[in-house]
Amino acid sequence: MRTKTNDRQTIALLPRIRILRGKDVAFGPGKADLLEQIRETGSLNQAARRLRMSYMKAWLLVRVMNACYKKPLVKASRGGSGGGGAELTSAGERVLSLYRTMERQSLRAMEPAWAGIASLLKSESS
Amino acid sequence: MRTKTNDRQTIALLPRIRILRGKDVAFGPGKADLLEQIRETGSLNQAARRLRMSYMKAWLLVRVMNACYKKPLVKASRGGSGGGGAELTSAGERVLSLYRTMERQSLRAMEPAWAGIASLLKSESS
Repeated sequence: MRTKTNDRQTIALLPRIRILRGKDVAFGPGKADLLEQIRETGSLNQAARRLRMSYMKAWLLVRVMNACYKKPLVKASRGGSGGGGAELTSAGERVLSLYRTMERQSLRAMEPAWAGIASLLKSESS
Repeated sequence: MRTKTNDRQTIALLPRIRILRGKDVAFGPGKADLLEQIRETGSLNQAARRLRMSYMKAWLLVRVMNACYKKPLVKASRGGSGGGGAELTSAGERVLSLYRTMERQSLRAMEPAWAGIASLLKSESS
């Protein structure tokens, strides 16, 4: 969904999907990235570091997520050196997968109208 | 896409689509609302007031938009009492319409996966 050639301006479509529950963001781009990094590293501390996020911020995001769903999305043990381990629950895998599906399906559905807008944008830098 | 009953938590899907050209936001939710208000009021000043936005902020949004596209989206005369008149060009009508189409098609495409996530969210306030 990006067009870039030489020194021309990059044209991009940037959809950001958030799921709200009351005042909480129950899911969104940052939480999806965090879950993916937790899955890859098995550690909340390492996941946070990869995303240049403080450990406390990552912990807070997990706490908000876990409180919004019927079952927690992340199982984390807080203590210990290195911040303890963390892993996705089956609910976590499911929500992450559905969210990425929503992103893909949204992009696909928008393609024709997006091509229409892109054709009206200046492509040369100016 | 909202569910609200009695004192339960409101669950909502909030997609926000932005179109970037280089560092500029060539279109997004705020610019779409501004174009709609310009069309309704025929005045940048009144459109800004309805959106609780300063006149200068609205003028800046219009200037950025107009610079991003091959043809301007808004034709505005700045001077005069009341801030002068403003109207959408045919390019402005076209971009606004394509953007709203993208929003609708995106929501429709996401419905099945969204229902899947919604079913995992707690619905009762707690």
